[in-house]
Amino acid sequence: MAYPIKSTPRSCFVLLLCTVFLGGALPAQTGEVALSEESSACLTCHESMHPGIVEDWRMSRHSMTTPSAALALPALERRVSSATIPPRLKPVAVGCFECHGQNPGKHPDTFDHFGYAVHVVVTPDDCATCHGTEWEEYRVSKMANAHDNLEMNPVYHTLVNAVDGVITPEGDALTQRPATDNTKSETCLACHGTTVKVRGKKTIDTEQGEIEIPDLTNWPNQGVGRINPDGTKGACTSCHPRHQFSIEVARKPYTCAQCHLEPDVPAWEVFRESKHGNIVLSSSGDIDWNAVPWVVGRDFRAPSCATCHSSLLARPDGDVLAPRTHDFGSRLWVRLFSLPYSHPQPKSGKTYEIKNADGLPLPTTFTGQPASEYLIDRAEGAKRLNAMKAICGACHSSDWTSNHFKRLDGAIATADSMILSSTLLMKKGWDSGLADPSNPFDEALERKWVEQWVFYGNSIKYAAAMIGQDYAAFKNGWWKMSKGLHDLHESILMKGKK
Amino acid sequence: MAYPIKSTPRSCFVLLLCTVFLGGALPAQTGEVALSEESSACLTCHESMHPGIVEDWRMSRHSMTTPSAALALPALERRVSSATIPPRLKPVAVGCFECHGQNPGKHPDTFDHFGYAVHVVVTPDDCATCHGTEWEEYRVSKMANAHDNLEMNPVYHTLVNAVDGVITPEGDALTQRPATDNTKSETCLACHGTTVKVRGKKTIDTEQGEIEIPDLTNWPNQGVGRINPDGTKGACTSCHPRHQFSIEVARKPYTCAQCHLEPDVPAWEVFRESKHGNIVLSSSGDIDWNAVPWVVGRDFRAPSCATCHSSLLARPDGDVLAPRTHDFGSRLWVRLFSLPYSHPQPKSGKTYEIKNADGLPLPTTFTGQPASEYLIDRAEGAKRLNAMKAICGACHSSDWTSNHFKRLDGAIATADSMILSSTLLMKKGWDSGLADPSNPFDEALERKWVEQWVFYGNSIKYAAAMIGQDYAAFKNGWWKMSKGLHDLHESILMKGKK
Amino acid sequence: MAYPIKSTPRSCFVLLLCTVFLGGALPAQTGEVALSEESSACLTCHESMHPGIVEDWRMSRHSMTTPSAALALPALERRVSSATIPPRLKPVAVGCFECHGQNPGKHPDTFDHFGYAVHVVVTPDDCATCHGTEWEEYRVSKMANAHDNLEMNPVYHTLVNAVDGVITPEGDALTQRPATDNTKSETCLACHGTTVKVRGKKTIDTEQGEIEIPDLTNWPNQGVGRINPDGTKGACTSCHPRHQFSIEVARKPYTCAQCHLEPDVPAWEVFRESKHGNIVLSSSGDIDWNAVPWVVGRDFRAPSCATCHSSLLARPDGDVLAPRTHDFGSRLWVRLFSLPYSHPQPKSGKTYEIKNADGLPLPTTFTGQPASEYLIDRAEGAKRLNAMKAICGACHSSDWTSNHFKRLDGAIATADSMILSSTLLMKKGWDSGLADPSNPFDEALERKWVEQWVFYGNSIKYAAAMIGQDYAAFKNGWWKMSKGLHDLHESILMKGKK
Repeated sequence: MAYPIKSTPRSCFVLLLCTVFLGGALPAQTGEVALSEESSACLTCHESMHPGIVEDWRMSRHSMTTPSAALALPALERRVSSATIPPRLKPVAVGCFECHGQNPGKHPDTFDHFGYAVHVVVTPDDCATCHGTEWEEYRVSKMANAHDNLEMNPVYHTLVNAVDGVITPEGDALTQRPATDNTKSETCLACHGTTVKVRGKKTIDTEQGEIEIPDLTNWPNQGVGRINPDGTKGACTSCHPRHQFSIEVARKPYTCAQCHLEPDVPAWEVFRESKHGNIVLSSSGDIDWNAVPWVVGRDFRAPSCATCHSSLLARPDGDVLAPRTHDFGSRLWVRLFSLPYSHPQPKSGKTYEIKNADGLPLPTTFTGQPASEYLIDRAEGAKRLNAMKAICGACHSSDWTSNHFKRLDGAIATADSMILSSTLLMKKGWDSGLADPSNPFDEALERKWVEQWVFYGNSIKYAAAMIGQDYAAFKNGWWKMSKGLHDLHESILMKGKK
Repeated sequence: MAYPIKSTPRSCFVLLLCTVFLGGALPAQTGEVALSEESSACLTCHESMHPGIVEDWRMSRHSMTTPSAALALPALERRVSSATIPPRLKPVAVGCFECHGQNPGKHPDTFDHFGYAVHVVVTPDDCATCHGTEWEEYRVSKMANAHDNLEMNPVYHTLVNAVDGVITPEGDALTQRPATDNTKSETCLACHGTTVKVRGKKTIDTEQGEIEIPDLTNWPNQGVGRINPDGTKGACTSCHPRHQFSIEVARKPYTCAQCHLEPDVPAWEVFRESKHGNIVLSSSGDIDWNAVPWVVGRDFRAPSCATCHSSLLARPDGDVLAPRTHDFGSRLWVRLFSLPYSHPQPKSGKTYEIKNADGLPLPTTFTGQPASEYLIDRAEGAKRLNAMKAICGACHSSDWTSNHFKRLDGAIATADSMILSSTLLMKKGWDSGLADPSNPFDEALERKWVEQWVFYGNSIKYAAAMIGQDYAAFKNGWWKMSKGLHDLHESILMKGKK
Repeated sequence: MAYPIKSTPRSCFVLLLCTVFLGGALPAQTGEVALSEESSACLTCHESMHPGIVEDWRMSRHSMTTPSAALALPALERRVSSATIPPRLKPVAVGCFECHGQNPGKHPDTFDHFGYAVHVVVTPDDCATCHGTEWEEYRVSKMANAHDNLEMNPVYHTLVNAVDGVITPEGDALTQRPATDNTKSETCLACHGTTVKVRGKKTIDTEQGEIEIPDLTNWPNQGVGRINPDGTKGACTSCHPRHQFSIEVARKPYTCAQCHLEPDVPAWEVFRESKHGNIVLSSSGDIDWNAVPWVVGRDFRAPSCATCHSSLLARPDGDVLAPRTHDFGSRLWVRLFSLPYSHPQPKSGKTYEIKNADGLPLPTTFTGQPASEYLIDRAEGAKRLNAMKAICGACHSSDWTSNHFKRLDGAIATADSMILSSTLLMKKGWDSGLADPSNPFDEALERKWVEQWVFYGNSIKYAAAMIGQDYAAFKNGWWKMSKGLHDLHESILMKGKK
């Protein structure tokens, strides 16, 4: 190990010595699976200090198998994807040190911890040691780039500041300050990811005496696009939480519901209301949430979010129905999300690179023209739609599926025409001085307009995609959309007439 | 079979021949239960094409028993109710063909499918072959008539168009187009049911080559009042979803939560917040969701929606506490739903036939006079209330129950008086030209008024009925109701005074 | 028994005689646990009359153990806390009569019921016979005083009447009546607790003939601060519902979700969205919800509400991580709830005794000055924060925990500065006559201001405390808060300028 070892405080040192003398025999075994000497040493202290995460890990597959055993499974059943796993890792369980001590030289937050070089923030690069394909998929996704897609897009940045900045009345006007890192980490960046950097070291007082640890900015955070100290983007723990790294948890809809919530992204609520959601929630105990591949019919009879958007699916005869993907938009042809209109999925996960015909970093113009060169073409869209239809086809007739997606097209078109009507009214408001377009997201009137697309447009479209009708009707759907349009109309064009 | 048999494409034909030669031996048996030759033939292809629904069916009671066995059970335990089940059905499992091949002559969507006359849309009439009593109950309910109750009522029709139609600004005015079938099928009719008709035939390309199938309008849909090609109304799969037709799923609250959601019908949210909901969700694993009859105490200790509104309930000694009903309003005396006021339950499930004293198809006038000749009388109401009290009485003292319903009466009366205040203000708004009463549901001011009854009135009343207090208080309850009244007051009477 | 025995109606009398002659042998035993003669007599009738609650009780620990056995457990595993339990109770199960016949002389609702002196409303004083420590903790809590904290605080009382009173338009004005007991018991007091008093006796007709029972006001109710006929405050059944009195149910988040809901107290929604909530809901079956002590790691890997706020927690080595408390605020240093600002926890559970610098019974002034003499000091706050950090520390590093709470401090400060901005605008509105401050909670403009703190301020703070980011962002969080501020600004300062 190239990393310099510093002196260790006493109390833990004694325990470590014992561990070394006893050959790591104490907690070195979990079932029949060997644990590395380093991870055994971690447990010496952390087992009693942090029983919650240690036991969480003990319940994990990581603690119960080894990379060697994982690689020995038939290809379709494998949960590891890297062609080359370092030989030293292969025969032991995936313990604390196998992750927190991985790639020490790459991590600016590596520090000496009682003689071991460990880092705080385990990154996708570490996970890629065994799960390389997943990382290759994820790194190009919109999710991995979620932080940059928000913070490096000046339009969204304006929105973030308008929403999250402290406002103070000064005389008859309002003064708006930019959003603080603290507020952003509690709101947008809790999902999109913060920027975690090492700003130095600090000494903290623990049960084992004073220890020196890296001083990290904007930490803790598990946002999907977290900027890590090693420069990577993302946090696998966003969806595989804590130390169990469970496939089961990631496949359950509660995981996606950490971020994909109404009013802006009502995926959870729409799913919960849908027939799919009803069956999944009513019959969760009948579903094998852990099976790899996930066999439709045998393991489950109705899909959760992961089924359609990520998991490796097979038919009972073993045929692959859909390969696994961790680029979660890659199975989708249309991007429902109204910005301010729906549009074909972006070619690249870095959506801040998009420029529309008005020169703005948005996938459509305010009047609906798509920034086509940055978006997938018809052929790619058709290919993806057909792949999704194949998944639906495991339970639905081709006519059913085909009609469903035609209806979705209709829903998108009508919702977008309502957004266009709203935007045309808003433009009159700007033209007549009722609002100031220099920041299009701050004033009360502008907020009504934004809600038309970010709340009600999205709600109608998500509801149509997954059949959660209330979200297309009275709950943030057409009721609110048409009411909002009348509101805008009366505020902008009827002003003073009644 | 009278239905003409056409030539079958080759690939499947070979499989069918095998099936016939092997005497249907291949997948003809599920456990010890025989499967018909026709259903065996279905499985030949569909087992690999649609493993999701085939396995769903395999987990169903339909696949594991026969009508003969079902009829042999003691009366109270029976899940079939028809006195006469055709002899050919009795000895075999209820497989694909037993439903999709039932009553071929009655179904305009019957088509030749590789030699078998099958129809796409299985209707309540088909289910009634074995479940006749349930269909007799259901067909007269408000639910079975849900499509017509919306579409054949000109008042509601105006509301649907005002909410769901695309609106375009033209000059200084707004132009409202009628709601499209597509939008209605994503919103109102997703719950109420679409009109499914055969408009012809179409050829589709499948793994087995081109096949000809009926071309259906507004399909798919599982709305409770769906108008089927055979003229029947309803879809049993609304609540017994997909091919498991499970009692368990229908009894769980997630099923009702497919449609009965806030802000207009907050049954799910109120239940979830209530003590009943807390116990059911906390102890779901301790409940026998499948038992028939459903024995209070033995099978469950707290009710889900189905307990009070539908299921056959018995005491541990076998006495019937409540007979099963699929006319879901028939156990209720008062209809909480504000139109614009609560009122006694309608006599007939066809609510579009109602005419109030103002000649409108609404159960009350705008000032609250009930259309009494269309509504159940006091004696019938008292009978139903007493029957419900008997259900409550399995867990609550008669004093408790009696006080609860007295309190509900008070909640209805006060909420209705707030609706009346709102309506009196709205009337002044119409009289003074602030809104145009020719369509009372479109303008911003009118929307505020509608929310007073459809959102806040309903929320207060549902909360009182099932004790989900937040929905009577800050969440769509009194907070919103009194705030809305002040809003209306200031918009209509204080205009320009401040 | 000192209570006078009256004559009993016949039908039940015969059954009682049988019971007495048979030595209570019939239902006197549950498993091997003896049942008192009195409780056996109760079951004689109530087993068939109310099978739901009797079976609920049969599934309870109360029916399966005795106080003697409960006292024999090691101290940490004990679920009873009273030093002295009356000898007559010790050898028998805790049956109907052990609670409903406890302390007969203290209960004004004690009545003769077929020869037994029983009371309807079992109170914390009865429960304290075995669970004395829990009652000592609870009685001084804000929860036990929840009724008085609302009804004896004139400011809140004004709010309740403004929200819950029926409003009638009279001429051009609105007339506001005070909220009725009926409405309050359906809204605020459903959680806070009603006042249950004996107003006399009444005769009711039952299966066993006419019986005389106490006539109770505002009954039923299980609010946390219910004023009981015996003068005690609270209802243990608020959280340990019905007759199972389950620790499991009380620990599950659905129990807290009976009252702690958005928009005013979004604890449930924020928890559900959080990583804690995701893991708990995804892995509920892996949690031992009944263990005492509740051992982190062994029994659970992620916390529910009870974990952090109430339960007795231990490490796997048996060390106590947190002693049990039924004073639910006592582990908290800051009170997030905006009144109108966050503030240190009150010293006393009787918050109506607080007087701020403006003489109002609020913990802060309208401009944010805390009523410090009524609130815990820094030292006490630091002690509590450290105790909470110790709980977090069972799963999280000290740096993680420390950063989390620093971030929470920031979230509170920024949210409170937004509330201050809103209040300064509202003050201008009052000063300029746009609203009448004599009742600061009724008019439309004032409602917008109240929502800034009661809805959006709380949402941001709860979201920060438990990491449910959407509730700090688009859902009742910063989006609504900054939008509301612009709304107030335009209504108050821009009036007529655009």
